Amino acid sequence: MDKLAIDFLSEIVGTGTLVLLGTGVVANVALIKNKGFNGGFLMVTIGWGLAVFAGVTVAYNSGAHLNPAVTLGLVASGAKTFGLGVAVSLGSVLTYIAGQFIGAILGAVVCWLAYKKHFDEEPEPANKLGVFSTGPAIRSYAWNLVTEIIGTFVLVFVVLAFGGGRQGATGGLAALGALPVALLVIVIGTSLGGPTGYAINPARDLGPRIAHAFLPIKGKGSSDWSYAWVPVVGPIIGGLLAGWLSLLLLPITTA
Amino acid sequence: MDKLAIDFLSEIVGTGTLVLLGTGVVANVALIKNKGFNGGFLMVTIGWGLAVFAGVTVAYNSGAHLNPAVTLGLVASGAKTFGLGVAVSLGSVLTYIAGQFIGAILGAVVCWLAYKKHFDEEPEPANKLGVFSTGPAIRSYAWNLVTEIIGTFVLVFVVLAFGGGRQGATGGLAALGALPVALLVIVIGTSLGGPTGYAINPARDLGPRIAHAFLPIKGKGSSDWSYAWVPVVGPIIGGLLAGWLSLLLLPITTA
Amino acid sequence: MDKLAIDFLSEIVGTGTLVLLGTGVVANVALIKNKGFNGGFLMVTIGWGLAVFAGVTVAYNSGAHLNPAVTLGLVASGAKTFGLGVAVSLGSVLTYIAGQFIGAILGAVVCWLAYKKHFDEEPEPANKLGVFSTGPAIRSYAWNLVTEIIGTFVLVFVVLAFGGGRQGATGGLAALGALPVALLVIVIGTSLGGPTGYAINPARDLGPRIAHAFLPIKGKGSSDWSYAWVPVVGPIIGGLLAGWLSLLLLPITTA
Amino acid sequence: MDKLAIDFLSEIVGTGTLVLLGTGVVANVALIKNKGFNGGFLMVTIGWGLAVFAGVTVAYNSGAHLNPAVTLGLVASGAKTFGLGVAVSLGSVLTYIAGQFIGAILGAVVCWLAYKKHFDEEPEPANKLGVFSTGPAIRSYAWNLVTEIIGTFVLVFVVLAFGGGRQGATGGLAALGALPVALLVIVIGTSLGGPTGYAINPARDLGPRIAHAFLPIKGKGSSDWSYAWVPVVGPIIGGLLAGWLSLLLLPITTA
Repeated sequence: MDKLAIDFLSEIVGTGTLVLLGTGVVANVALIKNKGFNGGFLMVTIGWGLAVFAGVTVAYNSGAHLNPAVTLGLVASGAKTFGLGVAVSLGSVLTYIAGQFIGAILGAVVCWLAYKKHFDEEPEPANKLGVFSTGPAIRSYAWNLVTEIIGTFVLVFVVLAFGGGRQGATGGLAALGALPVALLVIVIGTSLGGPTGYAINPARDLGPRIAHAFLPIKGKGSSDWSYAWVPVVGPIIGGLLAGWLSLLLLPITTA
Repeated sequence: MDKLAIDFLSEIVGTGTLVLLGTGVVANVALIKNKGFNGGFLMVTIGWGLAVFAGVTVAYNSGAHLNPAVTLGLVASGAKTFGLGVAVSLGSVLTYIAGQFIGAILGAVVCWLAYKKHFDEEPEPANKLGVFSTGPAIRSYAWNLVTEIIGTFVLVFVVLAFGGGRQGATGGLAALGALPVALLVIVIGTSLGGPTGYAINPARDLGPRIAHAFLPIKGKGSSDWSYAWVPVVGPIIGGLLAGWLSLLLLPITTA
Repeated sequence: MDKLAIDFLSEIVGTGTLVLLGTGVVANVALIKNKGFNGGFLMVTIGWGLAVFAGVTVAYNSGAHLNPAVTLGLVASGAKTFGLGVAVSLGSVLTYIAGQFIGAILGAVVCWLAYKKHFDEEPEPANKLGVFSTGPAIRSYAWNLVTEIIGTFVLVFVVLAFGGGRQGATGGLAALGALPVALLVIVIGTSLGGPTGYAINPARDLGPRIAHAFLPIKGKGSSDWSYAWVPVVGPIIGGLLAGWLSLLLLPITTA
Repeated sequence: MDKLAIDFLSEIVGTGTLVLLGTGVVANVALIKNKGFNGGFLMVTIGWGLAVFAGVTVAYNSGAHLNPAVTLGLVASGAKTFGLGVAVSLGSVLTYIAGQFIGAILGAVVCWLAYKKHFDEEPEPANKLGVFSTGPAIRSYAWNLVTEIIGTFVLVFVVLAFGGGRQGATGGLAALGALPVALLVIVIGTSLGGPTGYAINPARDLGPRIAHAFLPIKGKGSSDWSYAWVPVVGPIIGGLLAGWLSLLLLPITTA
């Protein structure tokens, strides 16, 4: 198989695993009659963090970007190659991002199957959408955008700093180890997730929203398309800023 | 001692430790007057995850399968040897699975001893069974089976991916390190454990159910045999699917 | 300084750190007006587990036994030397255990200082004693003893299994790494801590009980000496059993 | 760029990341309408611990002191150089501390932006100050000081012990790995954070308090300057004591 094709498959499998487990923990906490019902925000952040741990583990071939903001942040920071050694180009960037969206949609579909009876019995449509995609605690597009920019900035900036900044310019999440990335995602959730639910990943948010729109979910309501651009545009801005600023703020030394 | 005999002992000790600590955290949370009573679902998932950590640690000789779904998934993915180097055969597979069931039964018995007074004083029979075996939040054999298949698929698939898929075909849980496996089990609990309580292991569920049936537990009720096939068949299907699909979705490269 | 003297100092410092942080988390959760008041059992188990992490880290010279049950379990499993290389003898065993008790008493005193105002304002004497020492949820000396034996057995048995059993016979907790030991202590808490509060360490329980008896704690009640033997005798039995059974159940192979 | 200038930048970026994520988790838990509102003290301690993890990761050049008490404790323990190899002197010490305060102020400002709408809607001024700086559960300057001294002593003492005390005298937090430091900060929070909210870092407390004073926070109240000296003086005393006592209590051996 072609190297870029393997990377593409790897991003699908990795983002699929990430989104299945990430949306799954929200389903467990938010949908009626689940054993983890009302399990608390800490459980949600641990679930999402370890979902990234699992996603990174299975996406070893592509370097585990799993997030368009990471892919774009790597480009902004000067990455020359991705995954198995494919050159950074418009084509490889789009291939990675396509894999991330396909994986995110598939992961959300499998989550719906795993929680099928609970989606059926849940009376509140907003809780069903909440499993798939984020929404703001206080709706304010400008400030919600600021929060998503800051959260994604921290994600990509710290990712680029792992290992003293040395491998940041070429690796993805996998180069850093799955556990450190998971811990980073947990703390972004606990510490910056309050206002918007920390999408910090356009594929993680828009992919499942598309699944929410086309799946025959019993008693579902609106997919809230008016908010959908925030968790796409915010993370892209945050990731690009982190890539550029890392060149300034994270000098690589030989000491 | 014969190599297969050491592996057999190792699976007994490892699965026994796993089930003692796993059923123990449910006893602590579910049985009246315990210090961890009503400790929450997150505590249960952390307890089960670290129970696997301890079980893997003590089962270093056998490679720590501790789960028939893992054993069968390894076979499906093309494993040639187990543990200390015994050839994969019907005999070695059955020996491993026998060790897992014996260990699971013993672990459940010791848990009952550790919580003896709390079993005695607990008024609700369903809480007593819940310590030993899983049950569905919404009873629907077909959908409960789907949930168990998905949960076990994630377990075995990610296990086979650790280390870039390279050692997956021959190792068990021990080859991957006890901590990563524990984190994986925690996230399967938080994220896919809502509908069925994530048995994801036929020995973990059926072994303690057998113990529940024969132990002289004060005021115990039914062992719910009508549900007992779901957490056996589901994990077997999920483990086999993960083994087969890993050959397709987790290509091993040299990059 | 003499090697055994350094080991002695190391056990004092390590057990002191362990007990300060361990009793501290109980004070935070149990004493009125604290910021962590009613923080839940999971927080207590994480606090105690990471208290062991910190204690092991500072006790690198002695090998970090920090617990008479660990010291005796190592002897039972055939250890020939401790810490910096002192021979196992009645004298070195007693020196280690003395250091553990001195450290435990000092740690409890410092905890009382850190929480002085909260001890003063707490109205319930039983909550004050609960910071220092364990007590049973359901008082039954025989079954409480069984629970302490099982919990300590798991502690020492898994400790002896780390690293494939190879260094178990000579090392203490430090040989295994501070993080694995912390995870093990967390799971013993979540899973076997319900009935007795998991002393699993004679020094951790009796040392602070002595401090409770002699400190001028405002409005303190009984030190509950009638129960004091259970968390001493149980852990000693459990540790010795684990040491002996490890020789049988944890064979060291070269595979 | 000059080595000391890189270290200075590194302390700004690291302390900024630490304080952004640390104050962020308090904002999430304490300010109205957040998704993590009332998330519990354990979530706060995990958030602060992993905030340190992220801060240490980005501050690889300076050795990640991120705390004047760590800088002073290293000096007291006999450190000869900092970070990229600059000599310890009044100038380098003040440069590090200046970077820490600048970073802490910037981190608090960014936190306010991330939670802007929640600060606007929160009715209680004390909750707003609580995001920025610590305050005592029971106001008693003397005993609050004791608690801060003990907490900071444990922080710096255990930091100096990592790696068997060998690199303690020259490294900062980064030499020890970001994860162990995070675990240490979590346990100081769970176990010694009850009475004062564990500032254990003059920059972490005074920097955000200055930000609280000058930011145009809607409906803010007093910055509580009367308490402000306690979380500055206590940590300085605790850090110096730990540095000096480490020379006595943590002998470096060659065994």
